[in-house]
Amino acid sequence: MSLTIELHITTTTHLNLNPQTAISKRSYSIQFQSKSIYHSNPLTPLVLSHRKMCALPSSSSKVSFTVKSSLIDPDGGSLVDLVVPESERAAKISEAEAMPKVKLTKIDLEWAHVISEGWASPLKGFMREDEYLQSLHFNSLRMKDGSLVNLSLPIVLSVDDEAKERIGESIDVALIAPNGDLVAILRRTEIYKHNKEERIARTWGTTAPGLPYVEEVITPAGNWLIGGDLEVLKPIKYNDGLDHYRLSPHQLRREFDRRQADAVFAFQLRNPVHNGHALLMNDTRRRLLESGYKNPILLLHPLGGFTKADDVPLDVRMEQHSKVLEDGILDPDTTIVAIFPSPMHYAGPTEVQWHAKARINAGANFYIVGRDPAGMGHPTEKRDLYDPDHGKKVLSMAPGLEKLNILPFRVAAYDTIEKKMAFFDPSRAKDFLFISGTKMRTFARNGENPPDGFMCPGGWEVLVKYYESLQAEEATEKPAVLST
Amino acid sequence: MSLTIELHITTTTHLNLNPQTAISKRSYSIQFQSKSIYHSNPLTPLVLSHRKMCALPSSSSKVSFTVKSSLIDPDGGSLVDLVVPESERAAKISEAEAMPKVKLTKIDLEWAHVISEGWASPLKGFMREDEYLQSLHFNSLRMKDGSLVNLSLPIVLSVDDEAKERIGESIDVALIAPNGDLVAILRRTEIYKHNKEERIARTWGTTAPGLPYVEEVITPAGNWLIGGDLEVLKPIKYNDGLDHYRLSPHQLRREFDRRQADAVFAFQLRNPVHNGHALLMNDTRRRLLESGYKNPILLLHPLGGFTKADDVPLDVRMEQHSKVLEDGILDPDTTIVAIFPSPMHYAGPTEVQWHAKARINAGANFYIVGRDPAGMGHPTEKRDLYDPDHGKKVLSMAPGLEKLNILPFRVAAYDTIEKKMAFFDPSRAKDFLFISGTKMRTFARNGENPPDGFMCPGGWEVLVKYYESLQAEEATEKPAVLST
Repeated sequence: MSLTIELHITTTTHLNLNPQTAISKRSYSIQFQSKSIYHSNPLTPLVLSHRKMCALPSSSSKVSFTVKSSLIDPDGGSLVDLVVPESERAAKISEAEAMPKVKLTKIDLEWAHVISEGWASPLKGFMREDEYLQSLHFNSLRMKDGSLVNLSLPIVLSVDDEAKERIGESIDVALIAPNGDLVAILRRTEIYKHNKEERIARTWGTTAPGLPYVEEVITPAGNWLIGGDLEVLKPIKYNDGLDHYRLSPHQLRREFDRRQADAVFAFQLRNPVHNGHALLMNDTRRRLLESGYKNPILLLHPLGGFTKADDVPLDVRMEQHSKVLEDGILDPDTTIVAIFPSPMHYAGPTEVQWHAKARINAGANFYIVGRDPAGMGHPTEKRDLYDPDHGKKVLSMAPGLEKLNILPFRVAAYDTIEKKMAFFDPSRAKDFLFISGTKMRTFARNGENPPDGFMCPGGWEVLVKYYESLQAEEATEKPAVLST
Repeated sequence: MSLTIELHITTTTHLNLNPQTAISKRSYSIQFQSKSIYHSNPLTPLVLSHRKMCALPSSSSKVSFTVKSSLIDPDGGSLVDLVVPESERAAKISEAEAMPKVKLTKIDLEWAHVISEGWASPLKGFMREDEYLQSLHFNSLRMKDGSLVNLSLPIVLSVDDEAKERIGESIDVALIAPNGDLVAILRRTEIYKHNKEERIARTWGTTAPGLPYVEEVITPAGNWLIGGDLEVLKPIKYNDGLDHYRLSPHQLRREFDRRQADAVFAFQLRNPVHNGHALLMNDTRRRLLESGYKNPILLLHPLGGFTKADDVPLDVRMEQHSKVLEDGILDPDTTIVAIFPSPMHYAGPTEVQWHAKARINAGANFYIVGRDPAGMGHPTEKRDLYDPDHGKKVLSMAPGLEKLNILPFRVAAYDTIEKKMAFFDPSRAKDFLFISGTKMRTFARNGENPPDGFMCPGGWEVLVKYYESLQAEEATEKPAVLST
C-alpha cells in the first residue's frame, strides 16, 4: 500500500523556506513524490518511462517542474564500515594468523576496499549464495523490512579446489594481499559453486570471448565462491601517490555537509575530461541553481579500479583532471574530485546500476547517466555490445534506485562554426564534429592537436606526454622482443 | 516503510472462525506475516533462506507452525481478460481486416492464448521495450503503486525486416494464426530491436547451441520485437480433443470457489505421473489437512504448450493422467486436472518463477517446487544446465511471489524392501532405486515393466502403447529413408 501524492515544489517555495526546513521539507515531500513520478505504469509505452527521469529546464525553457531533492540516505539506512577499530586490531591480527589463508588478487583487494568502506552498503562482505543469486537474477537484494536495495553486480571472491580443500571445515578465513600482507578476516564463510558460464551470461548478456573483466578475473578464477562477513584489519591503501584522492563514502558525506551542499551531482568517468564533459557538468549546475538549489556540488568521480588495457591509466587521468580545474574549466570551489575505487566490468546496463548505487552511498542525490554507460564494442561482432539507450532506460526502472535523480546525458560535439564544444543541434547536424575516445587517443598518439576548444591545453598536454612515453617504451621494448 | 508483524495463527484459531471470516481474516493477517517470514535478511547464510519456504509438518512431527493461507489475489489485483465481447466482435473484425497483418507461429499463438486469459496478469499484450527490459534484468514489472509483480520470461512477438517495413507507421496491426485465421489485434504497437544473443544469455544463463526453445523460436525469429495491447477476437481453441482441459484462470478460480476450497496446491509437470509424484501430492494434502485446512484441492496442471521432441506428447500425458485418477492413485473428488497452455522454455530458475506466477493468477496459493524445476542437461557439456537447488532458492527470493506458499519437493524413490515408491530415507540409501524420466522412457520403449508399484498399470499401459506406436512409425519410415 504505497502512497502516491503529486507534490509540486516550485522555486519560490524553496526560497520562502529557511535552509533547514527547506531541506527536511523537500526531502520529506520527495519520499512520496518520487513514488508518483518514478512508479509510472510499466505497461505504458516506453516514451512515458522517460518521465521518470528528472528533467531540468534547458536554458531556453523556464517552465516550473519538480525534482527529488535533499541529500540521500545510504542503502540499508546506515553506511557499512568494516575497518576494525585500532583498539581491536592486535587481537584480530593474532587471531587471523591462526586461520586458513586465502590469497587475494589485485582486483579482489579492490573489491575488499569497496566493501569495507560501504560503497556496496548494506553488503557486509563477499556475497554468499543467496545474495549472489538475487544479484544475478534480480539485480537487487531484499532487506528484512521487505524493501529492495540495488546490487546489480555479483561481488564475489573465488577459491580453487586446493584452497577449498585447505579451508575444510574452518568457519573463518584470513585474506592475504598480493604482497603477502594480512589484510582481512572473512567470517562465517559459505563456499558454493562458481558457475562461470552462467555468471558471465547473466551479467554481460553475452559469453563471447574477449570481455576484459572476464579474461582478467573470471576465466582464471577458481571453481568455487566463498562468501562471508568481512573485517578489514586496517584501511586499504595503494601508496601510489593517489590515496589522498580516495575519499570513502563517509568522508565524502562529511565534505558535502562541510560545504553545506543542498544538491550533489555525480559524474562517473574513466576517460580524460574534454570540454564537452565540462559543458555538461557546468550546464547541470546552472540548471540546478535555476531550479532553486543554493549550493549544488559536483562530484567528479573517476573510476580507479581495474580498467582495460587501452583506457588511459588512473595516474594520467588524475593529472589531466587537475589541469582541467587549474585551467578553470571546472570551478574548484564547487567541485570535489575523488577516486571511485571500484574495478570496471564493462557490463553496460547491468553495471551502470552499480555505478549509480555506489554514489547514493557516497551521498550524491543526482546522477548523470551517459550514452551507452559502461558500454564497449562487442568483442567479436562489428557493433556496440549494448543498445546505447538501454543504460539510461534500465537505470530509470531499476529496483532500489527510486530515490536517486537520474539526469540523462545531453550529447555534446565540436561545433565547427562556433569553434567550441556545444550541445548537438540536429537542425544543423553538418556543423558538428563528433570526436570519439578512440579518435581523441589517435590524435594524442600521433602528437596531432584536436580542434581548438576541444580540451584545455594543459589537460591535452598531459595526454600527449603520456602517449609519447608509451611510444618511447614500445621503442625500447622492441629490440628486446626481437632479440629473443 | 513496510510493516513487519509476527503473527502466529494456530490450527485452533482457524477452527474457531466461520469459513468466511476465517478466509478473509487469514488472508489479511498473511499480508503482514508473509513479510516477516519471507523477507529474511539476504545477508544471512543461505541455510536461513530455507525458512522462507513454508514447512508443513511431516507425518512424524506434530509441531504447531504458521502458513500463509487463503485463496490469493491475481497479480495487479484483477485478472486480465483480453477476449473481445461477442457484441463488438463483428466491428473489430472488419476493423482488423484493414490493418497490416502479422503472421503468428504455432508458439506465438500459444502465447497470445496465455496472455488473453490472464495467466500473465497484469500483462495486457506482447511486451513493449520497457516491460521487456524489466523482465530481462529484474524478472519483474513495476506497477503504478510501486509494487512489483513477477514476470521472469520475456513474452514477446518478433517480426522480420519485411514485416516491419510493411507495418511502417501503422499504430495497430492484425495477428493471423498459422492456419490463416484472423485471431487478434495488437494496439498502440511499439517496434524495437531484438537482440537475440542478449535475450538468450540473460534468460538461460548460457548461449550454448542446442537449447530447444532457442532453436525452435528465437534463432528463426525476426530482428525486431513488436509490443502492444492485445485484443483476441474469439477464445483461442486447438480442436485437438483436449480443449475441455484448457480451463482459464477465471474458470479455475470459479471451480475452486464452487468446491469451497480453502487451499489450492498446484503441481506443474510435463511428464507422466508415477507413484512417487502421487505420494508427494497425497502427502501434501494430508499435511494441509493436519495443519487445519478443511478442503485442500490439488490442481494437477500439466504444461500444454511447446515441449522438446523427446518429452511425452500432451495427448498421451493427458490419457496417462486420467488413468491415474481412474485407478484411484489420486482422488478425483479433491483433484482438478487442467492444461497450463504455456510453451516450455527449459530455463530453470528463470522459468520456474513464471510457472509459479501463472498459478497465482489461476488461484493456487500453494506451489510444489521440484528438484531442478524446468531444468535439463547442458546442451554441450556433460552436466545439468542448472544447479538442481537453484530453482527453489530463486523461487523463494523472487520479487512478486511473496504471497505464494512454496512447498519444497520431497525426493521419492523406489523402496526395494517395501516394494513401492517412498520418500527417500538416507539412513538406508542402498534400499532405494532412482528411476529417472530417461530410465522410465527406456523401460516403456523396450516394452519392459518397471518394478511393481512404480506406476499404476493403467497409466503404464498408455506409455507402452505410445512407444510401440513410435517404433511402428520408425519402422515404416525406415525403408523410405533407405530408398532415398
